[in-house]
Amino acid sequence: MSRLCIHTITTKALSLEACLRVYPRYQVSGITLWESSLAGCQPSRIAGQIQDAGLQVVSLCRGGFFPAVTAGDRQEAINNNLRQIELAYTIGAPMLVLVCGAVPGQRLDDSRCQITDGIAAILPQAQQAGVKLAIEPLHPMYADHRSAINTMRQAHQICDALGSPASLGIAVDVYHVWWDPNLQAEIELAGKLHRLFAFHLCDWLTPTTDLLNDRGLMGEGCIDLSQINVWMEAAGFTGFREVEIFSNRWWSQDPATFLTAIRESYRSLYPSD
Amino acid sequence: MSRLCIHTITTKALSLEACLRVYPRYQVSGITLWESSLAGCQPSRIAGQIQDAGLQVVSLCRGGFFPAVTAGDRQEAINNNLRQIELAYTIGAPMLVLVCGAVPGQRLDDSRCQITDGIAAILPQAQQAGVKLAIEPLHPMYADHRSAINTMRQAHQICDALGSPASLGIAVDVYHVWWDPNLQAEIELAGKLHRLFAFHLCDWLTPTTDLLNDRGLMGEGCIDLSQINVWMEAAGFTGFREVEIFSNRWWSQDPATFLTAIRESYRSLYPSD
Repeated sequence: MSRLCIHTITTKALSLEACLRVYPRYQVSGITLWESSLAGCQPSRIAGQIQDAGLQVVSLCRGGFFPAVTAGDRQEAINNNLRQIELAYTIGAPMLVLVCGAVPGQRLDDSRCQITDGIAAILPQAQQAGVKLAIEPLHPMYADHRSAINTMRQAHQICDALGSPASLGIAVDVYHVWWDPNLQAEIELAGKLHRLFAFHLCDWLTPTTDLLNDRGLMGEGCIDLSQINVWMEAAGFTGFREVEIFSNRWWSQDPATFLTAIRESYRSLYPSD
Repeated sequence: MSRLCIHTITTKALSLEACLRVYPRYQVSGITLWESSLAGCQPSRIAGQIQDAGLQVVSLCRGGFFPAVTAGDRQEAINNNLRQIELAYTIGAPMLVLVCGAVPGQRLDDSRCQITDGIAAILPQAQQAGVKLAIEPLHPMYADHRSAINTMRQAHQICDALGSPASLGIAVDVYHVWWDPNLQAEIELAGKLHRLFAFHLCDWLTPTTDLLNDRGLMGEGCIDLSQINVWMEAAGFTGFREVEIFSNRWWSQDPATFLTAIRESYRSLYPSD
């Protein structure tokens, strides 16, 4: 078993069935499921299908998006997250990744409170279902409409505010946090507090031509992945290294070409895995 | 005299001569000069021309870009900054804005040290010339190649490291810092320590289609400008409010249309100015 996991959004063109068939050929051991790739699938059968493929479900992406202008819409967001927890449980995913949300023009402080409230509201059901919740801080360039949680510090603060429950932690995505001058200390703290739930890999391209879909394959960009990896390992992280690449450029290639490149890139980062 | 200043890059199509002629018609009192707009001008005559136009020079944009792989290139960057200080002095600009720089693939920590060293190296000449240096933290989406200084906290740390000289401070550009959960506290501290040197205005568009040249006019986007302004005033800031908008969209319009829109937007933000 390698520690290589791929997010299904990375191979966007492939159906879930195709992912299950081809991932193992590239030494992939884990799979993180994007909601979109579950369309048309029967949730109750997915756990078995993944097991049959010899893969391990790492997480379901994604819950969150808690902030909203009206109380009704915030409740709807909570209801949606409860359904996601249910779905994670059904497909055998031990974790739900939270992209916390933001509303353009709403004060960030308000959104941040609503996020904490939203997570508090869904936590009991997550605990009951045995589904961990991973807060994923998003890059500050998404603070307008995707997440008002933009640093690991803020994610820690939410965990603290909710009493540091064991089922609440942090997803460290290098794309979002690589620039943070406190990154090493935050990772170290997350390790100590058992909050290192996930580790997402890709790279930052120079220039980046699109804010959403121009991520690089590891090694193509400027993120010091080896250094961040050292910090993660030193903090005690032993989980999957999850490749999550939104890239119009790679999506336009043959998935087999991309998977080969991912495997090679992963191997050069982790030769002994 | 209003507190409205415009950066010449905002009206990119206009020559400096044209800026000096038309800015005053739009209740603009201050001008920040981008290097590019000085091409073909005689530096020794600029101070007089600006004074004749009834404008005040707020700053020269921009020095910085200290990090480099080789010692020779770092010295060249320092030399270039010394020339910029000289230029600022010559044109009567009391301040040089520093975009600190970064090298894709070089460790951020290394770049950050080189930035502190670079500023230390040019500080004596800046003091001698009476030219203030304003460190402008840049949005984390520029951490790859434009600036490894991405928060006000980091700018404060550089000021601290260099002994808090009176001529070293911070340029607060809303575009770069609006997302920062510590923004209010950092502005307050900067006020207390007399480091609030500049205040740059624009807005963040949703969606943002280009990382460099898709800024919004104040009011077009999601930044809570009124709130940030309250923080700046409470911290004792009494300087110019400088409009700096990189926008392919606005640049494709008639400059008169853009200047009218800037004046209207500024008036609605600051009705009593």
